[in-house]
Parts: sequence; structure tokens; C-alpha cells
Amino acid sequence: MAEYQPPRGMKDIVPDEMERRKWIYTNIRNVLDSYGYSEVATTELEMWDTLAAKAGEDNLGEVYDFKDKGDRRLALRFDLTCGIARMVAGMRTPKPIKLYAIGNAWRYDAPQKGRYRCFTQWDVELFGTDSTAADAEIISLSSDILKSLGLDFEVRINNRKLVENIFSYLKIDKKLYSGAMRTVDKIPKLSEYDILEEFKNAGISKSQAISLLEVLGRKGKPKDLILILRKEFKVDKKIQESIDTLENLFANLGKECILDLSIVRGIGYYTGIVFEAFDPKEEKLGSLFAGGRFDGLVGVYGKEDMPAVGVGGGIERLLEVMGQKNAFDNLKRPKSVFIAPINDNVRPYAKNVATSMRKNGFVTELDLTGRNLKKQFDYANKKGFSFVAVIGDKEEEEKCFMLRDMVSGKEKKMTL
Amino acid sequence: MAEYQPPRGMKDIVPDEMERRKWIYTNIRNVLDSYGYSEVATTELEMWDTLAAKAGEDNLGEVYDFKDKGDRRLALRFDLTCGIARMVAGMRTPKPIKLYAIGNAWRYDAPQKGRYRCFTQWDVELFGTDSTAADAEIISLSSDILKSLGLDFEVRINNRKLVENIFSYLKIDKKLYSGAMRTVDKIPKLSEYDILEEFKNAGISKSQAISLLEVLGRKGKPKDLILILRKEFKVDKKIQESIDTLENLFANLGKECILDLSIVRGIGYYTGIVFEAFDPKEEKLGSLFAGGRFDGLVGVYGKEDMPAVGVGGGIERLLEVMGQKNAFDNLKRPKSVFIAPINDNVRPYAKNVATSMRKNGFVTELDLTGRNLKKQFDYANKKGFSFVAVIGDKEEEEKCFMLRDMVSGKEKKMTL
Repeated sequence: MAEYQPPRGMKDIVPDEMERRKWIYTNIRNVLDSYGYSEVATTELEMWDTLAAKAGEDNLGEVYDFKDKGDRRLALRFDLTCGIARMVAGMRTPKPIKLYAIGNAWRYDAPQKGRYRCFTQWDVELFGTDSTAADAEIISLSSDILKSLGLDFEVRINNRKLVENIFSYLKIDKKLYSGAMRTVDKIPKLSEYDILEEFKNAGISKSQAISLLEVLGRKGKPKDLILILRKEFKVDKKIQESIDTLENLFANLGKECILDLSIVRGIGYYTGIVFEAFDPKEEKLGSLFAGGRFDGLVGVYGKEDMPAVGVGGGIERLLEVMGQKNAFDNLKRPKSVFIAPINDNVRPYAKNVATSMRKNGFVTELDLTGRNLKKQFDYANKKGFSFVAVIGDKEEEEKCFMLRDMVSGKEKKMTL
Repeated sequence: MAEYQPPRGMKDIVPDEMERRKWIYTNIRNVLDSYGYSEVATTELEMWDTLAAKAGEDNLGEVYDFKDKGDRRLALRFDLTCGIARMVAGMRTPKPIKLYAIGNAWRYDAPQKGRYRCFTQWDVELFGTDSTAADAEIISLSSDILKSLGLDFEVRINNRKLVENIFSYLKIDKKLYSGAMRTVDKIPKLSEYDILEEFKNAGISKSQAISLLEVLGRKGKPKDLILILRKEFKVDKKIQESIDTLENLFANLGKECILDLSIVRGIGYYTGIVFEAFDPKEEKLGSLFAGGRFDGLVGVYGKEDMPAVGVGGGIERLLEVMGQKNAFDNLKRPKSVFIAPINDNVRPYAKNVATSMRKNGFVTELDLTGRNLKKQFDYANKKGFSFVAVIGDKEEEEKCFMLRDMVSGKEKKMTL
């Protein structure tokens, strides 16, 4: 007997998990629809060139690519941003363009426990304005999504331009910026010693590295930190401008948002505001959402450059965090009734009862097996139905049925 | 300048189409949830062997398969039934098991206008009972889906066992059954001459072919047709049994259901009742849903055989039929409001107004660009907002705003 399984690193989504996912999807959609964003779905398969044009070199090794029967190099998308940026490059609609998607993405990496090669992301993109108000809206709606799911979190925000201007202030060579950025990204995760080592390997001098670690290791209330930075870099006009942007931004944000100078997001294409949200008590789970401004990407795919800011997050991580917090206990289950005909003669009448219960908003299952009443009750119990309606000849005659509450055991006579 | 496009035969789904799709998905889910079916999502990639175990030889050429980086032969699923049957073979839950899925499927065929290599299907499967009541439920819920979408249709139903028993009555060699089935399937589409040619090529004698064409070319009201068949094959017990099944089934179905003896569905794994739904006025578009009983498939994937009946349909076809009928005119759009701040100083107040309108159920977009009021109105007009709320210094002072109805032009003062 052969055994058939999903491919390694992939899994089926069973009814219980699907119910939880659908609850999450509905909350995400409700928030995004209320902000006037439109849902789209780009192709799950992309030409290799499309993905390669966006992905940093770091990511290309994990792309799930293959040659198809026509000998074309295709790939299963590794995120949703790429396809949306490609799509927008060809769209002719009034700006700003506000889009979102919920869909699968793939990576060809070594599967680990609880980590799959196919996962689901939500993704929101706002194209066509470089205003700080746009950055603020993206952060606000992301926060609203986590709030709608009942989660605690902190959004750590920074301006990549500020970090670049500090690099410049410290007279770091431009060629070393991207390597230095990758190290800054690791400040919260590695020891001071390791960070200094990494800066050294990236070509940064010891005194520069010590300065970077001191300045960029800071995080806290935006007002306080901005005051300190204003004083410290009084003479540097460009640094003051990047602080202006942050000040503007925080004026439009809630108190769950803090300034964290180590947030730069490793990925190369971010150009301004960047942010990541964490549950402070479950730091090790990783970010709940992350995003930032990427003003150069649409220009890669089309004739016209277009400023853009976006955010995305993983559904699997939300499932995990929410499971730990028993957040799904709030999941409303609709009333359900199992219709139990005692013989095949009353089936047409039982079917009418079922139709009527469905119209009244009950999830309604009609027994289809013809098994005896005891077995029908066993099944209804196991499946957790709220009510059972027994249908016999007498009920058919009187056009009624007995509705038994499976929790209280009480029965009530109902007419059709 | 490079141009980036989706791979040949694939397409992005833009906001307008997505809105229509979501309306269809919601209707399908509402019906299936009300019948007590649970949604699942199986993996989009399957091992080649899993698909090959189900697909008839006819279909294997169109499977979108490839070798991945690990040199494994994988394939993008060609339908949703296969993955669900594989999944159920490993499930331990009380029977019957009632599942559904809405998801993408792929075929590697020559792309044509309006036909894509990736398409979306809805699919419902009922496992664990061989009762005719189960067949009836699957047909009923499929009909309810089309009704919920406002479509006209006819369900053409047959029993494959009846056709096999007629083959046997006519003393056709068992080895010729599957070829003969494929020809029967074409009776409504080809001329009499071509059908007789096909039967001849399938090894059926001329007199057998003429009898088959005469009997299986019939369709009409179940009662009348069953009466005729009962008389015609009075002596054949097996044929009478297959007619019993049909009689039982039609007793539980609505008048949109007819008996059509040419419906056998080409695909090899069907074992009993089979059906297809058509819009009689748009016959050439093909079936709106199709399905049947397949009692042997789960046994292929697991230790235990399990009776099953299922149905599926294409979302793209529904979009096409419904587009032609202007059925999307019923699509309810939520009230929408565009918040227009006249300067950046009032932005925080404008943001509060936006939040409040969202809480009151409005799709609410806040201008993020800082453009002048005329341009803001132009944008709101182009995007079809129902209302515009202008926010100036006076409005902030008085904690109010003017709400302009974009259709009537009337204005109304609102307080926050």
C-alpha cells in the first residue's frame, strides 16, 4: 500500500486551522477595506527575471525556481510585494494607489519544525505619494490589524536616511553602507563584542564602530530620543532633516510606537522610514509585521518611478502568537443543528426542516446515512452540534419538530 | 527599459475583478457553511505520484509538472479533488466527512484567449456514505450556490451504473466500456454520423451503436423517462436497480433537475450518479458545475476504501456568465467617504474624523498627499466616493465637519 503525503516542507490546512485563518483574514480585510484599500491577487508563478530584479543577492538562493516544460525559468513568488509592484508599474489609475493581498509565498530552504516552504502573507502597499502621512497611515492600519486580533505589541520605527546621514557624519565610505546596514540590523540580537567584530569585517574602523553602537543602540520614547539627537547632531543639516521626518511621523502615531535606531531592515531596497512590530513578551517569535518606504522599486518594473510604502506580515506567526494567548476563544461559532430523521420515509420532510433552519441562520446538517437514532446522536455529540432535531412520522404529520439543546438537554417543540 | 509581465497564460487579478470574485466566494461559502461543510486548503504543489495515481491517462499530458532543485518530480495541482482525497485518507474524524475548498489549479496547455493556465475552482466533497441522500445533498447545495448567484440553470443527471448495465444488456465486451463511455459523453456535442463513427472505432458493432444512440440520446423529465426505461428493460434486474437509484434521487431534488442519459462524464473514476449543470441559453459556455460519485478514489491513497461524492466548478466561468447577465449590478458597495484636510495643521483632527467614520462603517480614505482642495475633489470624483468631508481650521475648532453628498451635491454639518 503506497502512502501519499504532501511534498516535504508543505502541509494541508485542516478545518480547525482553516477556521482560525479565516477569522484572521476577515479581520485583516475589514481593517483594510475600511481604509479604502483594494484587494488584488497577482500570479503565484513569476518569471525568474521579475523576481531577480527585486530580490537582493542574499535572497536569490532561497527562491523556489524551476524550468518548466517550455524550458522557461519560472519561480514560485517569495513574497507578495514583488508582484504588486510589477502590476502597479502597468496600471493607469488615479494616485495614490492603495492595494493589498493575502496569499501564499514559497521559499526553497531546509524545512524545520513549524516552518514550511509554503506560507501565507498579508501585504499592503501604498503607491504614488512620498508624504510622511502615507508612512503614518501604513503603520496605523497595521496596528489596527493587530488590535482587531486582540494582540499586544510595540512598533519600532526608524528612518534609514537618518542612519545613512549618521554614517556620512562619521565619514564612513559610501561603499561600506550596505554591509554596515546589515550589521546595524543585528544590534538587538548579538552581543556588543560580536557587533564590533561584524563592523570590523565590514571595513568600519574601531572608533566609528563604537560611535555607531552607542548612537544606534538607543531606543525609547520618540520625544525624548529626538531631543537628544537634535542636540547631539546640531551642526548637521541633513541629520536634522531626517529627524524632522521622524518628528512629523510620530505626531500622527499612537503610543504603541517607539523610536528604535537599530531598526534598518536588512533588505536593500528600503529608502526611508522602516518599522517592525513585536510582542515585547514574545520577542523571540520575531516580528508581527514589518515594512517601510521603497521609492525605487516600481521604477525597476516600468517606465515611471513611483514613491511607495508598504507593510507585510506572516499569517503562521499570527496563528502561533494567538494560539499561545488563547485569542481564538473569542472566535464566534454560529448556532448549529443536526437534523435526525428516524426513517427514510420522513426524509423529504426532514429536508424541508433543514432548509428552513438554514434560512434562519443555523449551520444545519441533515443525516445522510440512514443510521439509527443512537448513532445519529453519537455523531452530533462528537461534532459538537448545539441542537438536534428529531424527525419522526408524528412530527411530519403535525408539521413540527422537537429541538433538543445539546448542552442543557432541554427540548422545545417547534413548528415549521 | 525591460518589461516585466506575468508568465504566458497567467494573469493578475485587478481590484474590480477581485471584488466580483470575493462576492462569488462569499456566496459559495455562505451556502456550504450553512450545510455544515468545513473549508480546507490542501497543498498547491503535489508529488507527481499523487497526481498520477488519480489522473486518467488522458489528463497527464496537461499536468504542470517540473523537477525541483532537489530533483524531485513535483506538480502544481490540476484540480482540488485529488488533494482532498489524499488528505481524507489520513483523517480520523467521525463520518460522514464534509469538506470544501476554493483555490487555484493549473494546466500546462496552449493558452487561448480568455483561458488561462492557472484558474480557480470551488470544490465540495462528501466522504463516508454511499447513500443516494448524499448524492442528493451534493446536487442540492450546488444548485443553491447557483441560485444565490442569481443564475438560471438545468442540472442534467444520470447514473453511470445504468449506462454500464445497458452496455451489458447489449452484450458489449467489458474491455470496450471505457472507450464507449467517452463516446457517450459526446452524444450532445457531435452529429449522429460522427457518434456512430466513434462507436465503430471503439469496437462497438453497428447494431449495438444504433441501440446505444437511441437509448442514451434521451433526456427529459425524470418521471416520464423512468417510466419508459422501466418498461423497455423490464426483464433486466440490474437495470431496474440502477433506475431505483435514480428514482430515489429525483424524489429528493427540485424541478431544475432532469434525467439525461448521455451524461457519463469522461473521467474514469466516477462510479455511480454523475451530473452537470448548464445554462440552457448559454450551452456553449460549458458546464457551471459537474460532479458525481467516486467510491474508489480514497482507497488509492490510504488503507481504507471510502465512498465519496463530490462536485466542483470554475470561478472564471461564473464570472463570465454573471458578467453577461449583469448579475454584478446587485453587488452592494459600502458607503464611502473621502476626508479632505485643507492644510497639514488640521491633519491630526482629520485623522480623528477618519477613524470615527471607519467605526461607523464607512470606507474612509484620508488624503495623504497634501494637494489642493480642487485636486482632492477630482480624485474623490474619479474614485467614485459617495461623500467628501472637508476639514479646515474652523471645523477643527468647532469639532465638526461638512459632509457633501457627491451625487446630490447637498451638504450636511456633522459633529464628531
